[in-house]
Amino acid sequence: MSVESPAPESVAAAPVVRWRGGAGVATSDRLAVEAPLELRLDGRPFTVLMRTPGDDEELAAGFLFSEGIVTAANQIRALARPPDLPGETCRNFLDVDLAPEAAGRRRERGFYASASCGVCGKSSIADLAIVAPEITASLAIDRALLGRLPARLRERQVAFAATGGLHGAGLFSAAGEALAVREDIGRHNAVDKLIGWALAGRGLPLSDVVLVVSGRLGFEIVQKAVVAGVPVVAGVGAASTLAVALAERFGLTLVSFLRKEGFNLFGETSRVVGTDTAP
Amino acid sequence: MSVESPAPESVAAAPVVRWRGGAGVATSDRLAVEAPLELRLDGRPFTVLMRTPGDDEELAAGFLFSEGIVTAANQIRALARPPDLPGETCRNFLDVDLAPEAAGRRRERGFYASASCGVCGKSSIADLAIVAPEITASLAIDRALLGRLPARLRERQVAFAATGGLHGAGLFSAAGEALAVREDIGRHNAVDKLIGWALAGRGLPLSDVVLVVSGRLGFEIVQKAVVAGVPVVAGVGAASTLAVALAERFGLTLVSFLRKEGFNLFGETSRVVGTDTAP
Repeated sequence: MSVESPAPESVAAAPVVRWRGGAGVATSDRLAVEAPLELRLDGRPFTVLMRTPGDDEELAAGFLFSEGIVTAANQIRALARPPDLPGETCRNFLDVDLAPEAAGRRRERGFYASASCGVCGKSSIADLAIVAPEITASLAIDRALLGRLPARLRERQVAFAATGGLHGAGLFSAAGEALAVREDIGRHNAVDKLIGWALAGRGLPLSDVVLVVSGRLGFEIVQKAVVAGVPVVAGVGAASTLAVALAERFGLTLVSFLRKEGFNLFGETSRVVGTDTAP
Repeated sequence: MSVESPAPESVAAAPVVRWRGGAGVATSDRLAVEAPLELRLDGRPFTVLMRTPGDDEELAAGFLFSEGIVTAANQIRALARPPDLPGETCRNFLDVDLAPEAAGRRRERGFYASASCGVCGKSSIADLAIVAPEITASLAIDRALLGRLPARLRERQVAFAATGGLHGAGLFSAAGEALAVREDIGRHNAVDKLIGWALAGRGLPLSDVVLVVSGRLGFEIVQKAVVAGVPVVAGVGAASTLAVALAERFGLTLVSFLRKEGFNLFGETSRVVGTDTAP
């Protein structure tokens, strides 16, 4: 196997403010592309997979096999971009033509609406649209304090400490106080547990808190934060293109690769403040 | 917020063979618990969330809010364990009683079958049952070679190298040759891409390969491997309880925390061989 360059559709550039050692630089970041792929059967939405574009036909075929819809290659008669959609849009759609036995198996299994990670119950891309107001909360968090939150989260990830196998998510006040921390094998679940915690007591929207997660920042995390009205979302891992796009659209402050030495800043940057040198 | 111990239901012990520096020890590992939670509406399956038990009511409430089914706490009238199920089983079920406006909103949104990460299209726990033969392939991989595979995978994760934001998965021969490597923002997608690659050419089952993933080993990765007939699955991250249970049930060899210095071994251990001291 030869080593290749990344497929051009899998990586995209985005403007970022990069903070390191107390100094910020407005520059460009390379992000993993995250985009929904809608599989269509008989011209109708079948399922949405939130994926990185590239090898879409392999993904569709492998998914159909993993789910037991097809049991052999020849049960997929064709995988094609829908001819009725414009070029840009059609890249996120695939028409699946199944042999009769596979189409029958699908009906029999009641495989109706399905979803990838955090894209629960969505059978079409149209269903992914987020209905939520723009985030206008004026919360401000100090840059140096922000860099200390991952350690504060980690201290409270007691099940991770025992197993090394769980994601953590925490809600912090603008003063850096941990209000609630939850752990789960699914990063989206850890965030849902925090939202459920707020719903049961503190109330929503969560307009005065910072959400910190131990992992990466994808669509599902930012979508949940937008719906819950969280103004600042920070993660130890990378942000995806869709996470950054949502942050920009809803006025959310998104912080990736957060650590003591610095971080990358997207979306509404004004909520992260300090006496350091601004770019 | 006070720091607590892990909830007892979130961590479980499992027998493991721990290899370090060429020596193996049969001991016990602490794993993050992964188990499906079925939400039921009007006594009927509504959705399955693959989660770590604990704070289940928060998870259910947060999920319903994130998905826009409820918009205020009082639209959830009750969350209760089903009285018709035995004690052990009922911990993985929650009956949801919604106020009329929320129940109506659910129907309107066509939220029918849904899924968490890798649990695609499943509306009930019964749908998670895996139909696949036991894995009897006699592939053998050398312990020292196994420890070198993460570096070989990493070399080929070209989009990860550019962004830090993608999972990688690779198929390797028993001699350690990389046959195919795929990347995706969703770890389950990277594995589906490999299965689709095999389906289109090499053929299935994949009884003579080792699957290596850059992240954690949960239900969805092992489920896909079992369906594709992969005998050895190895990951750089932790394995969940459900991943280990599936490996044991289907005779799959599961390797967690894989690095040059060692790894943890579950399921069918006989496929990992070497001249080192066996436990």
